[in-house]
Parts: sequence; C-alpha cells; structure tokens
Amino acid sequence: MGRTLLTPEHHKKRIEKLQNRLYEQDIETFLMFNSKNIFYLTGLSFIPTERPIILILHKGEVSFFVPSLEIDHVRHQVPFVSEVFSYFEYPDETHPMKHFQRILMMEIKASAGKVASEAPGAPGYWGYKGPSLEETTGLKFKLLPDIVMDIRVIKEPEEIELMKESSKWADRAHKYLQEFTEIGANEIDVTIRASTQGSQDMVTELGDDYRPTGFSMFPAIALYRGQIGLNSYFPHALSRGLVFKKGDTLVTGASSDVYGIQSELERTMFMGEPSKRQRELFDAMMAAQDAALDAAGPGVYCSDVDKAARQAFKDKGVIQLVRHHTGHALGMEGHERPFLDLGSEDILAPGMIFSCEPGIYEKGLGGFRHSDTFVVTEDGIEVLTKYPRDLESLIIE
Amino acid sequence: MGRTLLTPEHHKKRIEKLQNRLYEQDIETFLMFNSKNIFYLTGLSFIPTERPIILILHKGEVSFFVPSLEIDHVRHQVPFVSEVFSYFEYPDETHPMKHFQRILMMEIKASAGKVASEAPGAPGYWGYKGPSLEETTGLKFKLLPDIVMDIRVIKEPEEIELMKESSKWADRAHKYLQEFTEIGANEIDVTIRASTQGSQDMVTELGDDYRPTGFSMFPAIALYRGQIGLNSYFPHALSRGLVFKKGDTLVTGASSDVYGIQSELERTMFMGEPSKRQRELFDAMMAAQDAALDAAGPGVYCSDVDKAARQAFKDKGVIQLVRHHTGHALGMEGHERPFLDLGSEDILAPGMIFSCEPGIYEKGLGGFRHSDTFVVTEDGIEVLTKYPRDLESLIIE
Repeated sequence: MGRTLLTPEHHKKRIEKLQNRLYEQDIETFLMFNSKNIFYLTGLSFIPTERPIILILHKGEVSFFVPSLEIDHVRHQVPFVSEVFSYFEYPDETHPMKHFQRILMMEIKASAGKVASEAPGAPGYWGYKGPSLEETTGLKFKLLPDIVMDIRVIKEPEEIELMKESSKWADRAHKYLQEFTEIGANEIDVTIRASTQGSQDMVTELGDDYRPTGFSMFPAIALYRGQIGLNSYFPHALSRGLVFKKGDTLVTGASSDVYGIQSELERTMFMGEPSKRQRELFDAMMAAQDAALDAAGPGVYCSDVDKAARQAFKDKGVIQLVRHHTGHALGMEGHERPFLDLGSEDILAPGMIFSCEPGIYEKGLGGFRHSDTFVVTEDGIEVLTKYPRDLESLIIE
Repeated sequence: MGRTLLTPEHHKKRIEKLQNRLYEQDIETFLMFNSKNIFYLTGLSFIPTERPIILILHKGEVSFFVPSLEIDHVRHQVPFVSEVFSYFEYPDETHPMKHFQRILMMEIKASAGKVASEAPGAPGYWGYKGPSLEETTGLKFKLLPDIVMDIRVIKEPEEIELMKESSKWADRAHKYLQEFTEIGANEIDVTIRASTQGSQDMVTELGDDYRPTGFSMFPAIALYRGQIGLNSYFPHALSRGLVFKKGDTLVTGASSDVYGIQSELERTMFMGEPSKRQRELFDAMMAAQDAALDAAGPGVYCSDVDKAARQAFKDKGVIQLVRHHTGHALGMEGHERPFLDLGSEDILAPGMIFSCEPGIYEKGLGGFRHSDTFVVTEDGIEVLTKYPRDLESLIIE
C-alpha cells in the first residue's frame, strides 16, 4: 500500500521552509487566508465561510485567528499550534477585524516594516465584507501572494507518493466507468455508480489509512460531464444528463483525493466500432500526447512541450482543431501553474507534476483528448496514471 | 412535479433588471467575472480555470469574452448572446487582456466614465495572473461588486419553486441517510450510498426535466462530514471516516441542486436511546429553532431572529454552549448575506430564503443542530424542508 497521508512533522518542515524564506525578506509576521495553503502548511482542513480564518506565522510560531466554531477544531487538528485566538462570529456586533487588530498589535506584537500577508485582507467570500489589513491595523503589509505557491510548485517525494496513490484510485474508478457505460444508459447514473464503486473500493482497501480531507465529497470519482457524442466537441461541456448512443465519441474524467492531492485521468472512448474519421482523430491525438511526453523532462521549456504536441497535430493536418494548450501543473488544485503552453517562460524541474492532455475538437463529430498525470524526475518523466491508452482498449461494444 | 429550470426569457428579464439599475448610475458597459452571477444572468455554467471569462453587458446587449475552448459552448448555451469575442489560450504568447483591450475599445466601443466592473480585474484563479482592467484599458472602472448580488438577495417566485423542489430531494436523500446508518458502518460509505440512491431517484423521477448545472457532481446529497459521536462537538468537523457506535450523537447534512439552487437540511440524530443530557440539549436546540422560526417574518430585523434563538438557549441554561449565529441566506451559494446574526442591520423581506440552524455544542458529548430552509412570504414564513424534526423520529435503533 502506498502513502496516504503526511505527518505533523512533515507540516512543521514546510513551515520551517516558509519561515526561512520570510526571514530572507526580513519578515517576522506573515498572514495567510488561502484554505489550500493553510492545509498545506498545517494539515488543517476547514469549511471556508463568511467567517475569516487567518493563519499567523510569527517568528516560527504557528497561531490561528478563527471564529468560535473552529477553536477546538483547530486545537484538535494541529498538534503544534501555539495560540488559537478567536472572535465569536461574523458579522456580530463587533467586526472580527476589530478583534484581530488588538490581537496582532497587543498579543502577537507585530512590528511595523516586518509584516507581510498573502492578500490585502480576508477574501470576500459568501457575503463577508471587511476592511483591509492596512485599514484594520494602520500597518503597511508587504504582499507575498506567491510565496507559498512557489514552494508548492515543486512536489516533495512524499507528495509524489500521494499522487501515485491518487492515480491508482483514479485508474480503478475509471475501470468501473468504462464497465458501466452502455447504450441507453444516462451519463449521470453511470458517473454516480462508477464513483460509488471506486470510492467504496478505496475506503475498504485502504481502511483506517484513508483520511478524507473534506476537499471532495467522494474519495474517488470517475465521471462524464457532458462530453458525449456531438457534445464531446465542447472541451469544457458540463453534464446535461445525456444518454449513450451507438457511434458516440466520449471524453471521460477521473481522480481521487489522497490527503488533498488529486490526480487527473481522462480518456477518449467510443460506443462501438469507430468510423474512419474517429480513428484518424484519435490517432492524431495519441501522436500529439506521445510527442509531448517524449519532449518533457527536466530543464525543458514548458513551451517546448506544447510546441511538440502542436507539431504532431500539424503533421497530421489537424492543427485547426486545437482549442487549448497541452497541460497544466496540478497537485492540491485542479490546475496549477506553470502551464504547458506556447507562452510560458517556465522550465520543467524535478518534482513538478503536470497533466498531459493535447486535444482536438471537430464540429459535428466530437472531441479527442486523453489526459495523463506525469511527474518530472531527475532524468526524465514518469507517467503516474496507468489506464490503457490504446484505441482497441477503449471501444465499448 | 415542481419547477426544475428557468427559461432563456427568464434570464433576459434578469438582464433587463440589471441593465435598468446600471442606467440609473449612468453606466453603459458592465463587466462580470463571477461564475454564479454569470449563470444567474445567462444560464451559462462553465468550469472556471486559469482562463479569464468575462460577461459584457453593453447597452442591453449580452456579449462574452472567452478562451477558444468555450466559444461554441457559449453560443450553444446562451441563445440570446450577441457577440462571442475570444482569445486562444492563457498564458499564450499574447496575454488575453491585451486582446480584451482591443475588443473593449474598438469593438464594444466603451466610453470613459460609463464603464463599471464587479471586480478590479479577472480573479487570480488556478494560476492566472494579469493586469487590472484599468491597467489594461486606461479607463477608470466604477466598482460595483454588489449590484448583481443585491438582485439575487430577493428570490423570484420561480426561484422559490426551484428551492421547494431542491428541498424535496434533500428530504428524500436524507431518508436514505437515516435508513443506511447503523452501528459499525463507516460514515463515508453511508454518505456515498445515500447520495447515490437519492440522486438516482431524482434522475429517474424527474427524467428529462432534470438538467444538472455542473455546480455539484451529484444531483442530491445526504452526508456525514465528521459530526459523529464526540466529534459532533465540532460544528464544522470534516469527515474522518468515522464508524457509528451506540450512544453517538450525529449531525447530518443534505441538499440537492435544482438549476443551481441548493437547499439546506440538517438533523441531529442518535444511535440508540438518547441519555438524559442528550434529550435536554436536543430539546433546548428545538426550543431555539422554534423561537427563531416564530420570530421570523417580513419586516423583522435579522438580529431579532438571532436574539429569539439565544433567549431560548438562555431560558434553558445553555447559552454558553452556543458557537455561531442562527442562520444565513442561501440560494445559489451555500451561504449568502444577510445573516441571522446579532450584528446584522438587515430586515427580512418577502422572497428572502434563509437557513434556520441554532446550535449548541457540549465537549465530551456532542453537537445539537437542525437546519431547515425557509422562505419569507408576504405575511410570514414557509419552511421548505419537511423532514421530521422530533426526537422520536430521529433515533436509530
């Protein structure tokens, strides 16, 4: 069995890494609001609502500012937390940021010129309104919106193990999706059944090792979201409750949540024997995906991976059917930077994880896109999603 | 069968309403980024990614600025769209906002002093970075972040019908949740099975009338998210794969997605005969919910509804166990403003929809919270979720 979670010690190391980067910039106190960044650093997952939640990193000490409904939840989830400061509720008779002003100045004792934040203030989520940090405290905050994501871009060996595990369960759920797909079935029903079966396998086989993070309702998912038949022409179709018919081109999706890390797997499939044109476009898509995977590796420009896929499409005479770039980084979010895109100036480095998903879309016929998750290694890449890619394996009789 | 969707004509009326409000402020061109606001006005649901999508309302005409992968999707979903402007991809060799600058100035022909936007620029989502609208165009944009939400606060009669339908399927899914809960079962497994069964009922019984919006993966959900036994003490616990034991206090959740409208239903349940203290706290919670529902009605201050619940908790001697306010508005988002909160200055008006969910939490025992969805009518309120609330109905033998 692979890795399914990270320890508090691991989170503490991440905090140390961030703290060191902050010291380099002469920052003593750093404030964070982003729920994924907070989970990444502390292991606390929470439901973001109208109530501000702030992670305070001050001279290496981790504290939180939370509404009363989260006080004990934080203490329970973050064993190394130093202080849990709190306010009762939002909006309440006194605005939460009034309380925060006192805490930051009197308890934390933040110093002018040594404070930074990842945003100007708490995000305006679900009806929250409030003053900026500067308005609240009178201090100037250095804005460091990217400092945590800059760390997250390079996945640690342990995170790569989580992604391997996530890929394994995406493969499994997708197997059920393919198995349950048949002429006359409704895409929603097949999605539900495949995700249910895949999730039940995951919960049963991982047992106590599986700890849902709360970021996704189902441990594993395998789905259709509307890319069925003529509608598969829309790269980002959304499910309309379509019914499978003979001759349909299908584009699927699958993932699973392993301690917040989510892989990406997509397959182009056919309802019955594909036509000549369906085969041609499938082959072109496969050639582009092969070309992109061949081009990828440490030290390579992201733009060159996209160029490789496009060259393959040009060679097949279908470049006019391209509607998007070749891939994106991923980890705790569905898409992350950098992008495998002509306009990217980034370079692939060991520990980066990407989707590889060049696609083509022909009106009146459908869409053709596989997506696989790969990690950049010291001397190449490793594809983590292992689901069969070849056409013959993807025909549903 | 109730209402399950809205027509393009309905969306056009909403746009007209917004346009009239914009004219009152002498605004000719208004730009929107928020995916829920865009769905509310046009019926277009899309997957927000790193690629900016902008809804342009100009002198009553509806246009979009989208990446190439969404061009035909928009034309297909929004029959009354005027122009679909596009760029190829993000980041690409030319930044999307460069294209937007030309389109806004040369094609839309926006006029200085008559332009507004709901945000300073495209949101920094999934790795997107870009200049503000002002940096892009040189124009000063009036910021109107609340103008669409101000319309959404009062639900139309048709939306109230959607919420009734959503409540009905939340009730149904919850019935399965209660049925499947038993000693030794895992919360994740029960959640999956109840949501599957509830969703399958919904898809089967509504047939072609059901059109998923893409905002939620499952049509109906009924779930545990960790509020089980001692853990039910955490109001916003997140699922940990807990197993049901005799004596547990449980707090559940259920909803369904009917054209983007999502009800809220929660119940406190017991694994076996509750103890004296469990009964006392359940009764106190029921008294507070009754008091809040009795207090609510058109013309009433939101704060007075919260006060009524708190008075009931005081009368029962459990005010120290309160951790949050009594409720929040809802509709297309899980929480919306206004809030049933001591600090609110808002007044309940016909067409507003709220959750009513006063809760108490005792360490070492658990949490006690029902949540019901109600609409404010001309002469009172109507509770839309109908699931049994009384203790005897909520004991699992």
